[in-house]
Amino acid sequence: MNQDYIQPNAWSILEEGFNAERVKSSESLFSIGNGAMGQRANFEEKYTGPTFQGSYIAGVYYPDKTRVGWWKNGYPEYFAKVLNAPNWIGINVKINDEELDLHICKSVSKFKRELNMQEGWLARSFEAELQNGIKIKVDTKRFLSLELDEVGVINYNVTPLNSDAKITYTPYLDASITNEDTNWDDQFWDVLNVTQNNQQSFIEAKTMKTEFHTCTFMQSRLFINQEEILIDCDNEKTEKTALCNYQQQVKKNETYTIHKFGGYVVDRNHDKNALVAAAKEALDKAVSFGFDAMLETQKNSWAQIWHTSDITIEGDVKAQQGIRFNIFQLNQTYLGTDASLNIGPKGFTGEKYGGSTYWDTEAYCIPFYMATKDQSVARTLLEYRYNHLDKAIENAEKLGFTNGAALYPMVTMNGEECHNEWEITFEEIHRNGAIAFAIYNYFRYTNDYSYIPEKGLEVLIGIARFWHQRVNFSMDKRKFVMLGVTGPNEYENNVNNNWYTNYIAKWCIEYALENIETVKIDHISDYIRIKEKTNFTDEELSSWKNVSDNMYFPHSEKHNVFLQQDGFLDKELITVEDLDKSQRPINQKWSWDRILRSPYIKQADTLQGFYMFEDHFSTEELERHFDFYEPFTVHESSLSPCVHSIQAAKLDRMDQAYTFYLRTSRLDLDDYNHEVEEGLHITSMAGTWMSIVEGFAGMRVVENTLSFAPKIPKQWKSFSFKVNFRNQVIKVNVQQGETYFEVEGNQEIKILVNGDLKTISPNSLKTA
Amino acid sequence: MNQDYIQPNAWSILEEGFNAERVKSSESLFSIGNGAMGQRANFEEKYTGPTFQGSYIAGVYYPDKTRVGWWKNGYPEYFAKVLNAPNWIGINVKINDEELDLHICKSVSKFKRELNMQEGWLARSFEAELQNGIKIKVDTKRFLSLELDEVGVINYNVTPLNSDAKITYTPYLDASITNEDTNWDDQFWDVLNVTQNNQQSFIEAKTMKTEFHTCTFMQSRLFINQEEILIDCDNEKTEKTALCNYQQQVKKNETYTIHKFGGYVVDRNHDKNALVAAAKEALDKAVSFGFDAMLETQKNSWAQIWHTSDITIEGDVKAQQGIRFNIFQLNQTYLGTDASLNIGPKGFTGEKYGGSTYWDTEAYCIPFYMATKDQSVARTLLEYRYNHLDKAIENAEKLGFTNGAALYPMVTMNGEECHNEWEITFEEIHRNGAIAFAIYNYFRYTNDYSYIPEKGLEVLIGIARFWHQRVNFSMDKRKFVMLGVTGPNEYENNVNNNWYTNYIAKWCIEYALENIETVKIDHISDYIRIKEKTNFTDEELSSWKNVSDNMYFPHSEKHNVFLQQDGFLDKELITVEDLDKSQRPINQKWSWDRILRSPYIKQADTLQGFYMFEDHFSTEELERHFDFYEPFTVHESSLSPCVHSIQAAKLDRMDQAYTFYLRTSRLDLDDYNHEVEEGLHITSMAGTWMSIVEGFAGMRVVENTLSFAPKIPKQWKSFSFKVNFRNQVIKVNVQQGETYFEVEGNQEIKILVNGDLKTISPNSLKTA
Repeated sequence: MNQDYIQPNAWSILEEGFNAERVKSSESLFSIGNGAMGQRANFEEKYTGPTFQGSYIAGVYYPDKTRVGWWKNGYPEYFAKVLNAPNWIGINVKINDEELDLHICKSVSKFKRELNMQEGWLARSFEAELQNGIKIKVDTKRFLSLELDEVGVINYNVTPLNSDAKITYTPYLDASITNEDTNWDDQFWDVLNVTQNNQQSFIEAKTMKTEFHTCTFMQSRLFINQEEILIDCDNEKTEKTALCNYQQQVKKNETYTIHKFGGYVVDRNHDKNALVAAAKEALDKAVSFGFDAMLETQKNSWAQIWHTSDITIEGDVKAQQGIRFNIFQLNQTYLGTDASLNIGPKGFTGEKYGGSTYWDTEAYCIPFYMATKDQSVARTLLEYRYNHLDKAIENAEKLGFTNGAALYPMVTMNGEECHNEWEITFEEIHRNGAIAFAIYNYFRYTNDYSYIPEKGLEVLIGIARFWHQRVNFSMDKRKFVMLGVTGPNEYENNVNNNWYTNYIAKWCIEYALENIETVKIDHISDYIRIKEKTNFTDEELSSWKNVSDNMYFPHSEKHNVFLQQDGFLDKELITVEDLDKSQRPINQKWSWDRILRSPYIKQADTLQGFYMFEDHFSTEELERHFDFYEPFTVHESSLSPCVHSIQAAKLDRMDQAYTFYLRTSRLDLDDYNHEVEEGLHITSMAGTWMSIVEGFAGMRVVENTLSFAPKIPKQWKSFSFKVNFRNQVIKVNVQQGETYFEVEGNQEIKILVNGDLKTISPNSLKTA
Repeated sequence: MNQDYIQPNAWSILEEGFNAERVKSSESLFSIGNGAMGQRANFEEKYTGPTFQGSYIAGVYYPDKTRVGWWKNGYPEYFAKVLNAPNWIGINVKINDEELDLHICKSVSKFKRELNMQEGWLARSFEAELQNGIKIKVDTKRFLSLELDEVGVINYNVTPLNSDAKITYTPYLDASITNEDTNWDDQFWDVLNVTQNNQQSFIEAKTMKTEFHTCTFMQSRLFINQEEILIDCDNEKTEKTALCNYQQQVKKNETYTIHKFGGYVVDRNHDKNALVAAAKEALDKAVSFGFDAMLETQKNSWAQIWHTSDITIEGDVKAQQGIRFNIFQLNQTYLGTDASLNIGPKGFTGEKYGGSTYWDTEAYCIPFYMATKDQSVARTLLEYRYNHLDKAIENAEKLGFTNGAALYPMVTMNGEECHNEWEITFEEIHRNGAIAFAIYNYFRYTNDYSYIPEKGLEVLIGIARFWHQRVNFSMDKRKFVMLGVTGPNEYENNVNNNWYTNYIAKWCIEYALENIETVKIDHISDYIRIKEKTNFTDEELSSWKNVSDNMYFPHSEKHNVFLQQDGFLDKELITVEDLDKSQRPINQKWSWDRILRSPYIKQADTLQGFYMFEDHFSTEELERHFDFYEPFTVHESSLSPCVHSIQAAKLDRMDQAYTFYLRTSRLDLDDYNHEVEEGLHITSMAGTWMSIVEGFAGMRVVENTLSFAPKIPKQWKSFSFKVNFRNQVIKVNVQQGETYFEVEGNQEIKILVNGDLKTISPNSLKTA
């Protein structure tokens, strides 16, 4: 953890001072993205110190050959890996023929970075003295345009401070890049063509195996003291690179500026044989707008995003910065316009974990996107899974399931499994439940039932079939049991009767049965189509029901709690508080067997069920289970604190809720786990949003009505946020002692506040 | 399975006809070894078809960098891999300048291989027509000398059949070899020197990292029609190879012969700076003896081995061939003279599985070596573990154990762990029990207590400490439980309270306590030394006792059996007989999760405990457990059928016992598992021996007396074997209806036959 590294600021992420050991961490923290592409905050100029170079194009991946120690039947042969794309941001800078490189210059001072979240840009400035004695001042600003999402722009300025200097800018494209994360050091890119056309350069390349065709492009404009100058560019190319040299004699204190326009076009959006033309069109448009006009547009685009998604916190600038960082990164990662994309756990900030989609999307991200965007965005996320249903059925077949049973992969890019630990890949099957739950959650929040007959019901049927086949009847227990699973708490593997998994399995079957009935009554033509396609019979459905009616749930009479799994009470039940601090985090200190036989819980497991099915249990039951399990929880998953924060708030334990909140909201900014250099924890950021909206503000949907139970940490003066509920935007402002509600537009809305029905009228602040 | 491939013969393994698809399998089956080195039956001449080249030197290994998909704390960074050594058997053969290569010549006929087990040599003969039209007859014979165990000899003969021919022999040494099995395609050998000295060639090389220095050497003698000729050898060398050309004009029907002498000297036995001199000495001696004299010696050496270790079976030549093949391979692999060596699961026949030592050595091999060799051999095997005690303590420390607790590795070469699956490496800890059991078994059989105060007790203490720390007290069960283990049945992972593991843990503690008492009384100076070294206290010992007195054992009242582990009765208990045959073998057909939640048992688990602790249970209890567990056993481990065969014989189920016996004895010869090309299953071969001696003949040690309960499969006329019991050799001949006993030497011995005490006098056949 490093609390002094990032400076507190309400709207910006700020770093001051150059520290080579922090470069990789800052490359993660200052990452930028626009949903279509993203990049780590690598320097434009050459840097020979330790760096993790990464530029990523949404939906462009590589099927890396699986690497394991010991093969198990059913493992995927290949899996999709996030792929470093050709570099378009590079600008080599020479000052009197000496290369600017912060790793080797004589001194660096006044180094400063800013990630401006309000306007969506990244800036960097510093002064440096080169080995040749020349002192320069450098200012850069860059962004990836939300409006023209194939284009990014860099404004790079050098001012010689102690003498005139010959300055050469060499903007380049480089397709000879490698991946930080690769199993076999394979080549991932096949460069097809490098072309240069006066001021423009293009590299056409396709990914190996997946054959995604891309064209990376660039064009530059040059300025002296803000006056555009026309210099001949001196083009050069090699097999995998294209560059131009712009050399200029610059006087002391004059500023030499390059605006570099670059980016990617891909064959998901264009004909693969006309990518250069598409790139040229994008470039021409961007160059004609120019940097300043594009920056203005960028500010406006971000202003629109912040309009509904901002959360303000008064009286705690670090909390304010934390929550905005989370909201900003979520919006940089995914904007909900393309059903082939999803929310990778590292977004565009790193390569760890193959694939892009975990159950995190359904369990943590959908609530955020439902409430802060048009409801079509959440529907697009659901469609992503519908589009992968056939692959999920194939995946289940590989594991011996039949009759259209579907098992969604643990991690995926294109519907195929991207993970290869048997205890996760084959056994962490509760993920299937989250996918069904998201359908329920979407309908509950939006009241848009149309998704279920159109697409969702087929998914629900595939999932119900899976659970029905996955259990077996125990003659000993006279109940259906589920053997050999890994629950959300991945610090237990291959356990029997994980309560959460059994519970969500039962729920999935019941929810599928209920919706089959509803669709039969209200959407008969869809019913006929689906029945024909999936071939379910009444006999099959009653066999499902037999399972859901007779599911076994491990329970302790003595403690009056459901047990996380069979045998939990055999463990040595020493609480985390009583565990020697030198042993933490256990995932770094202990061998795996020791973790497994310990009682320690990585993230909410039984409590995850209490979170998702809150209305099935009394507050007293929640409290009993929270008191039983939380003391054994080490929260070593980024997804853990948010659920506990929401439950602590519900139980009126605001200090504890606030502690959990801090841990989730500044996880990356304060680098709790010493791993931020690998990238950011994008999906858990949605959990942070939930901690405020569902936790502190207590937002729920109760019988088609939005309900709040506002509370506020004593450290804060106030907090406020907006939610889009069924196409009405409600603003909530929680203060110490009272809460204000407002609705946008011209229709009133009824909401529940601490159980009381209140009517909120347009343009009138309601106090509660 | 291929029952027609190897021809039945009492003393030889015979193959007729050339089949390129069988080459790799035959390379395994016809492997030769002499305890110090071994090699697959690769052709001497060039062969460009599919082949698996392997020549191995005992104790020479390479620490290969671990490869896993997902790293777990505690995995070894490197592990010892069986290492392909420089090739010394190669002889390129040219006929009129055309290279002899069975893969590309016009035709091959009369191809025949023989592995003569009685005399210890491998022969091959064939006729071939080359592309140039020349027909030749080739006869080869080779062996690795037991007497001069650094040397092997090849007798290679070519006879042109249809015309005169110019024949060139090019014997060579080649250190540019690779490994079939490698994680990262590393280079394993560093060649230091290639030297040639008239007729002799030497390659000095050391292994990377481990720095084992070796010298590979060769020298040849040439003959025409058995008359030695002196030809100048035309020496050539490269950086990693040495060769000599011996060219000769040979008349039609004349035989041109080369005797190639070669092999390895290693720095385990010689000064690493004088290896060429040592090699020269070995070569000079071998060459001066000559092929024929060395072959005579070889026959005598094997005759001595067969004298005590042979098992004869009358009336079933395939069973006879099978058991001799097993005994032959065990003796080729390990002869018990060097405490730094052990019995690799593939011996010198392949590279699969890193390391050389599994619990197989203690559980399966020690009984064979105890009964067929001098008892010093078994003691040497025990010392191997004593010498690794410090490493076992380090290994346990890596997993969080303290105070001298020892966990022996799952697989090892030098005491360090060579395996990296968490469910095996960290959890298949019952291996520790087998190591303690072997100490008990050695004393029971030999009555040599001296090993325990001298060395064994320290091992027992380390193991007892491990178990004492590995259990925890369950407040729920009010007993000590052992969570998260993998039993001998590796088709269950991370289970709680595996009965076998709990049972052997309890036994280990009790056996350690008992021996601490004995040593205290009878070997006080050893007691003082050990107490000082290991620092145990009375308090500690009583804490051990508390664990062994209060160990939990899962049990079913309903079935009146101990349960393999907690929750076993929740499984869907469909017997193997009722499982669709298309699903077998499940380890090839099913994903791992499906195997784990099934009731199917890979190899004896609860029954392994009944085998090892037979005298703790009544025959009726054995029968009940056998009837409960065997029907769920798929026997997909080569170590499974032997234990079941022994138990079936004890239960008078001779047909079943015989079926199991067949499965174990010809596992490799009939290639049951379609994998013999990877190498032979050496350690399970000791299990085959046990099936006859302990199974059919019912041999046990009962209160210091050798006891027999002879039975014979109805398919056999008789079987006979010898055992060395406390330095007396007893010959047992079991016929249908009666059994004959004889003792060698001049002392009588008392034995138990079916419970009756009988005195066997020297030189007199006793009928019982």
